[in-house]
Amino acid sequence: MTLTGEQDFLDLIDEAFPNQGPGLVLGRGDDCAILSVTGELCLSTDLFLEDAHFRLAYFPPEDIGYKALAVNLSDVAAMGGIPLGFSLGLAGPPELGRDFYRRLLTGMAGLSRSTGCLLTGGDLSRAARLTLCLTIWGQAAGPDFLRRGRALAGDVLFVHAGGARSTAPLACLGLSRAGLTVLEAGLSQDKGLEAKDFPQAVAAHLRPEMRLDAAQALARTGLVTALMDLSDGLAADLPRFLLRPGQTQARALGADLDISPDLLHPELVALCGRTGADPTAEAFAGGEDYALLGAVSPGDWPSLRRAVPGLCALGRVSRAPGLRLNGSIPPDRGFDHFRPYFGPAL
Amino acid sequence: MTLTGEQDFLDLIDEAFPNQGPGLVLGRGDDCAILSVTGELCLSTDLFLEDAHFRLAYFPPEDIGYKALAVNLSDVAAMGGIPLGFSLGLAGPPELGRDFYRRLLTGMAGLSRSTGCLLTGGDLSRAARLTLCLTIWGQAAGPDFLRRGRALAGDVLFVHAGGARSTAPLACLGLSRAGLTVLEAGLSQDKGLEAKDFPQAVAAHLRPEMRLDAAQALARTGLVTALMDLSDGLAADLPRFLLRPGQTQARALGADLDISPDLLHPELVALCGRTGADPTAEAFAGGEDYALLGAVSPGDWPSLRRAVPGLCALGRVSRAPGLRLNGSIPPDRGFDHFRPYFGPAL
Repeated sequence: MTLTGEQDFLDLIDEAFPNQGPGLVLGRGDDCAILSVTGELCLSTDLFLEDAHFRLAYFPPEDIGYKALAVNLSDVAAMGGIPLGFSLGLAGPPELGRDFYRRLLTGMAGLSRSTGCLLTGGDLSRAARLTLCLTIWGQAAGPDFLRRGRALAGDVLFVHAGGARSTAPLACLGLSRAGLTVLEAGLSQDKGLEAKDFPQAVAAHLRPEMRLDAAQALARTGLVTALMDLSDGLAADLPRFLLRPGQTQARALGADLDISPDLLHPELVALCGRTGADPTAEAFAGGEDYALLGAVSPGDWPSLRRAVPGLCALGRVSRAPGLRLNGSIPPDRGFDHFRPYFGPAL
Repeated sequence: MTLTGEQDFLDLIDEAFPNQGPGLVLGRGDDCAILSVTGELCLSTDLFLEDAHFRLAYFPPEDIGYKALAVNLSDVAAMGGIPLGFSLGLAGPPELGRDFYRRLLTGMAGLSRSTGCLLTGGDLSRAARLTLCLTIWGQAAGPDFLRRGRALAGDVLFVHAGGARSTAPLACLGLSRAGLTVLEAGLSQDKGLEAKDFPQAVAAHLRPEMRLDAAQALARTGLVTALMDLSDGLAADLPRFLLRPGQTQARALGADLDISPDLLHPELVALCGRTGADPTAEAFAGGEDYALLGAVSPGDWPSLRRAVPGLCALGRVSRAPGLRLNGSIPPDRGFDHFRPYFGPAL
């Protein structure tokens, strides 16, 4: 059934999301929500757009709702934060129907509940394509928020890539990208790739794992010098991670990375066996990994590994600028959401 | 020149907006911004979408940027708040060109500067249509934030419709709607209406006046029982204003309104003279007025008028449910952004 108006949509939201909780003085229904806050807040906004970030063709509505919130939660995790609340700008064609939107909101509400992150308000509109824009905020889990741009030469670079889906230490790198490749190939049916042969890669793309607990544990150790989440892939994100505020890329620190194929997810390696791509280069390019990338002094690395399970060393921060992957200069790759990354144009 | 990528866009933002200011511990460039906060924050999210909220055909890019922020500032004003910061989700076709986006950001940055409301971060993407989603936050100007749903039977209903554009006490009601009518008529050129004949109506639609100072002054008096901003028009917003949290519309308070045509903007009256519409009904339907609607006890009304210039009484809150306009039951009208309000469909 087609949505008939704004009230219809608001009713769906009230069915899916509670409107009260800790720190929320006034929830949805007024011109603003009112939050009770002490100290510092971290806050981030992410777009999640049809045909730029997801396709209706293979994304179940629950996963659209889940992932839109997940990528925002990952930004709070990247600061060593505890998510508190979020607001939602949601626009789309009413013709997608009440059931579609109900399922989308259900997927989002499940993750909202399990992370204690409350929906405090937002805005609804009609649009030709499904459009989500979330703003999320949180408080520091440790003594301070963690930041990029604070790694020092000699620091160990690590990722938190642990999780239930694989025991491979760097399982998350490139896995979502592999899932995207498989799902896109399924649309054209011309490459002989099927989603059922790559279930974990597809799941990594549709429903990325959350690393909030690991991020908060990292923050509480007080040992981490810098942290971020890998949304655009190591190739694009590592230079941003190393850059100090106000510094030019030419004067930034560099890094030497060791990524061995036997540390990667078997599905990524298997996919590369079929497509002829280099698994290490795919893991380096990545995109939407939502793994945590961090730095720690070499002296603190053993304690940190013991304190937080699931960490894997990637390499070292160097005084020499630029990135070296297994001793060579890697190809220049990475995600740019302003360029179309599926199909020729939107 | 077409935008070539995300970095190109980020550079435009850094040219237009400073990245530091009061209360901002960490600005743009990390996974989250970090805000320093004391007490309570009010927070709101608004979409501003091509072909739902604005048309490229007659909106100069500066006004798109201005109005996207203005409608958000109006939500903070409606709470009696002082705006502190905002984040921006911005997506659109790169082919609109660097100059277009520069002008859009310049219009937004001017209002950001004049209101002291800092851009702390956001997200950029390609999209087929221009898409803006802003989240704004602020702190209370008075002892508490002001809310809807707290008016009492017998309260005087008032609007703050003052401003430089007219001396008519209810000049703002219906004026933006009149401007929209004129601008839309200009597209089809079939009604003989020209923007040059209705300059203030057109300006009210393209570049609504901000009422932050008045809202903060109202909050500081401590006399106002309830406040909101008129975004969807009196017809749609007044029932929301009167409704208490958790109450059904059938049990809500009602209102008796007196809106005389001689209190309205002369351009609205002149337009109705041309189209045959009833000026009072148009003012009541409104839409995007961004006037402040408030309630105050009859005993406090004289003091409030003296304390805050530009207030005009609209009527009284009644125990009898429903709205009466000049003694009659008005037609059921008002804005719903989920329905297309220009053209047949998006």
